[in-house]
Amino acid sequence: MSRLEVSQLGDTRSSPDSVEALFFDVFGTLVDWRTTIAREVAGLGRGIDGEAFADAWRAEYQPGMEGVRAGNRGYVRLDILHRENLDRILPRFGLDDLDDPARQRLNLVWHRLDAWLDVEFGLSRLRRRFKLAPASNGNIALMVDLARHNNFGWDAILGAEIARDYKPKPEVYLAAADALALPPERCMMVAAHSYDLAAAAACGLRTAHVARPDEYGPATGEAGPTVPVDVAAGSLSELAERLGA
Amino acid sequence: MSRLEVSQLGDTRSSPDSVEALFFDVFGTLVDWRTTIAREVAGLGRGIDGEAFADAWRAEYQPGMEGVRAGNRGYVRLDILHRENLDRILPRFGLDDLDDPARQRLNLVWHRLDAWLDVEFGLSRLRRRFKLAPASNGNIALMVDLARHNNFGWDAILGAEIARDYKPKPEVYLAAADALALPPERCMMVAAHSYDLAAAAACGLRTAHVARPDEYGPATGEAGPTVPVDVAAGSLSELAERLGA
Repeated sequence: MSRLEVSQLGDTRSSPDSVEALFFDVFGTLVDWRTTIAREVAGLGRGIDGEAFADAWRAEYQPGMEGVRAGNRGYVRLDILHRENLDRILPRFGLDDLDDPARQRLNLVWHRLDAWLDVEFGLSRLRRRFKLAPASNGNIALMVDLARHNNFGWDAILGAEIARDYKPKPEVYLAAADALALPPERCMMVAAHSYDLAAAAACGLRTAHVARPDEYGPATGEAGPTVPVDVAAGSLSELAERLGA
Repeated sequence: MSRLEVSQLGDTRSSPDSVEALFFDVFGTLVDWRTTIAREVAGLGRGIDGEAFADAWRAEYQPGMEGVRAGNRGYVRLDILHRENLDRILPRFGLDDLDDPARQRLNLVWHRLDAWLDVEFGLSRLRRRFKLAPASNGNIALMVDLARHNNFGWDAILGAEIARDYKPKPEVYLAAADALALPPERCMMVAAHSYDLAAAAACGLRTAHVARPDEYGPATGEAGPTVPVDVAAGSLSELAERLGA
């Protein structure tokens, strides 16, 4: 779907002035998981292709959550799923010999991912006008560490752990709005992934797409939304501009 | 119990260096509920004794939560309990005629309480060294508004709404530590109320008392802890000093 088909802020729904809170996807939208993981894995000095390792680890991400989404297991935090996924891929990279403390250390790389360059300033600008919270599949402790690492200022940490389920299940978006005592239409989900925005819109939230075309390597990410959204922007600064913040 | 009986940081438990997160009581400890409420009620121009009104409203606070704590009703947010308590006391002050929008507005005074003067700077100093979160009976939306009103920088909003129960039930302290993936002994509860600190200590948290001697009017609050604590301070700045932040 081209940008021209994207609905504009002046559409038939409630005015953008009614948006009071912005909820953010984090992995891929705010932080560049691939580059940080690739660098740390390369730093192990074992001759591993760091980017291939990062991609393999991330490829286990959606299947790892599926058991919880499907109700086949109770909610477990993403830190646990990341560790299970790590244990699954290590043999493929000849790293079966990594001991438990080394695996724990490596697993915490998700807590120290670097943000895309526009994020710190963009969030601080958006925060003057809106309440901001992550609505990520990452657990609270992980979100707290990422925020301290990258100087994100959040009003609250919402997302999967509050809802005890994983996006794109509607419970996650609705729990975030409910925690701020706002109806869904006064909240806007911001993400680089159209599936996330489609799910949020189905719950009544407004949506903003931020392009991260290099998320999985050059020209691999979404350069624009593939679903109707309220706003499409190339950076958080552009989003702030578009939202009058 | 005198300050001399208060345990010192160099006690037999784990070293203070192991404390990674501080959890804060909010009403009374960080914000001066009585003065703000009294001022707003006086501002209604109905000749009400604002301080008597504030005291009456606050007196319904503990009984209001008791139904949830006892399991006689499911968790409901403090905003709802505050409104129930407001409806209960209005007739005593000749304010039965207040309509629903006026009651809603008045109820939100809890979202705009002013902080004690040492808090903004004290928190910002403590945050350089520790993760900070409210562990209040206030709900998330209420904590978010108080933080924006007073410029508190939190790493996360924890407390009653996460635990779906009210302090001093152990679940609230334990859920806060668990959300940050920390054992209780690496967390410290900070409060102006000894009952809160005693309950936190029983869960294995470390504790800090901050004196708010004028909480309920001059010389009515706790000038010092009545239970053993790890640190007793007269302000958040003194607490920061004592904790090396």
